[in-house]
Amino acid sequence: MPSVKGELALIAQIRRQFAARPSKTLALGIGDDCAILRPPTGSELLVTTDFSLEDRHFRRDLHPAHVVGHRCLTRGLSDLAAMGATPLAAFLSLALPKDLPAKWVKQFLEGLETLAKASKVPLAGGDTAQSPTDHILADIVLLGTAPTGTALRRSGAKPGDLLYVTGQLGAAAAQLRTLLAGGRVRSHHLPQPRLAIGQKIRGKATACIDLSDGLSTDLAHLCEASKVGAEVDLAALPIHPFATQDDALNGGEDYELLFTAPPTARIPKTLATPIGRILKPRKIVAITPDGTSNPLPPRGWEHFQ
Amino acid sequence: MPSVKGELALIAQIRRQFAARPSKTLALGIGDDCAILRPPTGSELLVTTDFSLEDRHFRRDLHPAHVVGHRCLTRGLSDLAAMGATPLAAFLSLALPKDLPAKWVKQFLEGLETLAKASKVPLAGGDTAQSPTDHILADIVLLGTAPTGTALRRSGAKPGDLLYVTGQLGAAAAQLRTLLAGGRVRSHHLPQPRLAIGQKIRGKATACIDLSDGLSTDLAHLCEASKVGAEVDLAALPIHPFATQDDALNGGEDYELLFTAPPTARIPKTLATPIGRILKPRKIVAITPDGTSNPLPPRGWEHFQ
Repeated sequence: MPSVKGELALIAQIRRQFAARPSKTLALGIGDDCAILRPPTGSELLVTTDFSLEDRHFRRDLHPAHVVGHRCLTRGLSDLAAMGATPLAAFLSLALPKDLPAKWVKQFLEGLETLAKASKVPLAGGDTAQSPTDHILADIVLLGTAPTGTALRRSGAKPGDLLYVTGQLGAAAAQLRTLLAGGRVRSHHLPQPRLAIGQKIRGKATACIDLSDGLSTDLAHLCEASKVGAEVDLAALPIHPFATQDDALNGGEDYELLFTAPPTARIPKTLATPIGRILKPRKIVAITPDGTSNPLPPRGWEHFQ
Repeated sequence: MPSVKGELALIAQIRRQFAARPSKTLALGIGDDCAILRPPTGSELLVTTDFSLEDRHFRRDLHPAHVVGHRCLTRGLSDLAAMGATPLAAFLSLALPKDLPAKWVKQFLEGLETLAKASKVPLAGGDTAQSPTDHILADIVLLGTAPTGTALRRSGAKPGDLLYVTGQLGAAAAQLRTLLAGGRVRSHHLPQPRLAIGQKIRGKATACIDLSDGLSTDLAHLCEASKVGAEVDLAALPIHPFATQDDALNGGEDYELLFTAPPTARIPKTLATPIGRILKPRKIVAITPDGTSNPLPPRGWEHFQ
């Protein structure tokens, strides 16, 4: 297996594979000191950066390269989705171990490219380096746009708002559990960033966050930013068929959207499931099917613990 | 020495230290899924990302933490300078080993903050993680703006243009040599991104690149992008008093600007030193003081070699 040969060769490979032609919004892509972008007038700019570090965010023995590439981009796109943004451009900083098989890089880039094409986001630049260890290190940067003043924030939830979540929860955590136990999976879970839904709820939702660390933790972030509390109806949780309630509450990497909207916004059930409501007292509780109310502590992922 | 306690504590520390108040161009900083920026109308957007990886771009035993922080930001700001841009916002992705002394982080952030303040660039977001190894991993993202259509590129150099360089060359390489040999230095070299000069030569320079990898390598990049050759007058090189000619030609991390302009542009000597000219034949040569012409191969830094 040929190994990666030099930074310039890697840049050339990325350039060949992504080769974003100049467009109305991308004046200059990979190859200069900076990329040049021209966001549409009347829009504000959304920016997010997310690490994908081997043995921290993925494991080479558990996650195939194309899955790692897909998830790397998902992390950034999902942050854009949570603000209701339309993707403008992606930037990838990638540090590779010296002896990494070229095949791994190829498949990683393919996984990233497939999602980039589906999401209509060009790879406009980044950085490359040799990893100082045998760990693969990636950092993805996403830029997006939204009409000025319309980007969704975490901070606008009001008492009386309903709490919604898109999709089904817990699939990523359930699959990770299987893999960690040495089990095999038919196909690897590829979380889909909810860009279309994020754009649809702009102007209706009062607050929004994406579920990267787990519902219990991300709901705490949303409530803290909005200075409110919340109650979650456990019976209403859209739990993935293969997941447990604990996966759905505390598992990370679902990349679904958690948002709030007043009942008058009439969010259709086809878009998201109502799972609770926002309360004035600043505590977060879970209501069991028999009506008991228990504290819902943040038990999602915290990196440094 | 207390060690870093949890991702949230680190984010809180960064937020406290940088606390960018909302401004005309920064609508929302650290703390949501994305930052929200509002670039001035009539401008195009410049974006660059740069790794600073321990044992690849710096060494903890050679470089004090505040120097690492300063250089981390310099790498990005210098790319903006090379395009003639005005900084808009910075984003920092930072992964720290579990047992890293809190003092290191504090001083790293102070070094970064001092230069950020001097360059009037707010830290608007980023990511944090625990490093999967005992290496410190940073990735800096810089956004800048320039009036639409005026950003300097590498690709516009024309035969007959003069070749200029700012400042003095080789200081970083000379100091690194001293440090690697076990020597001590009175003060650590803090390269200054040439933002003001980059903005001044907009509309005059035909091509520009920053010297991050070394003059011989970065000149080759500029000539390749412009499809031209060049000759460098070795006698004209502004070599730093402590540096050798080899440091000046092949040493990295000078972060000076290398640019081309027609003689009619009359670049003042206070701004930059003329060191050669652009030629039509696509080869790069160095002219010795006695008039001999020798090939000037790219001998700067290439990461994967």
